[in-house]
Amino acid sequence: MSRSDTREQIIAAGMKCLVEKSFNAVGVQDITDTAGVPKGSFYNHFESKEALGAEIVARYGDNETRREILTDPNVPPLQRLRRHFERISARFEDSHFTRGCILGNFSAELANQSALIRESLQRLYALWTKDLAAVIAEAQENGAVANKTKASDIAALLLDGYEGALLRARVERSRKPFDRFMKFAFGQILV
Amino acid sequence: MSRSDTREQIIAAGMKCLVEKSFNAVGVQDITDTAGVPKGSFYNHFESKEALGAEIVARYGDNETRREILTDPNVPPLQRLRRHFERISARFEDSHFTRGCILGNFSAELANQSALIRESLQRLYALWTKDLAAVIAEAQENGAVANKTKASDIAALLLDGYEGALLRARVERSRKPFDRFMKFAFGQILV
Repeated sequence: MSRSDTREQIIAAGMKCLVEKSFNAVGVQDITDTAGVPKGSFYNHFESKEALGAEIVARYGDNETRREILTDPNVPPLQRLRRHFERISARFEDSHFTRGCILGNFSAELANQSALIRESLQRLYALWTKDLAAVIAEAQENGAVANKTKASDIAALLLDGYEGALLRARVERSRKPFDRFMKFAFGQILV
Repeated sequence: MSRSDTREQIIAAGMKCLVEKSFNAVGVQDITDTAGVPKGSFYNHFESKEALGAEIVARYGDNETRREILTDPNVPPLQRLRRHFERISARFEDSHFTRGCILGNFSAELANQSALIRESLQRLYALWTKDLAAVIAEAQENGAVANKTKASDIAALLLDGYEGALLRARVERSRKPFDRFMKFAFGQILV
């Protein structure tokens, strides 16, 4: 196995462990066991579990599926936004709400513990908000959305509202918080 | 020190540790050190750290200051809601965003780890939402809010949106997410 393959396997294993479990409850050994690589190899690729955490947050920012859905030129902007939220909700529901979102989980658990991860979360918030704002601005320009609030403010509100809805969805093990979020987002904000 | 004093000191110390640090990063020893009681005494009062966590969530539900603000008969309902959110935002800001909310933190970190804590979080969500919904219903009845959406749905949306805003506020170490939340809550939802 090449050096870069091992690195990718560690990242994939880290993602798998960390969407289901607390960062502080997952050890390097859990991650290398999941990756099927020797524990010692971890430190050839990452200085610390914290460094892996920051890399995982950066990967979330580069999510190609999200960007493809949000920029699909064949779909009207409001429908792209709807598909984006529906797709992520479906993933949480498919996992029976055992999975969380790296953005929300790490923000709650690590904002006050790791400056490195907090900075990577800042970049992820900015990036995701920007991707959403571009689509909202398009909907405002083509008249689908009459709400004149700055697109970047609507985008940030929606992303924050979604992360909050996800917290409750995981506790209630129910998609109701998502449904309520969608109703407000598309019925009272994006109007 | 009486038995119940020790128990209260452990709960207070647990709250102090757990609003700033991850549940999985805080040990029983950290809590008893903060409380100034011997480690062994912890288990005279709680079966486990998990049981203490559930008790702390239950205490959050009983928060008297929140209820006093939300039910103050001398203040119009919309202003009570505003004061409620402003008060909790001020506490986070005063801590320079090092404090989190037990509801949001535990939901993110423990929903998938502890059934006991998840159940206590379900009760806290229900209780807090009910307290908010009562004030919103009052504002709908007296005509201050024309929005005909069910008060309990508006309440749940606002609580979730606030918890999401708090996640970002802690990462950005800024009150901007709170200001944005308030602008939408009072400018586009509670209208």
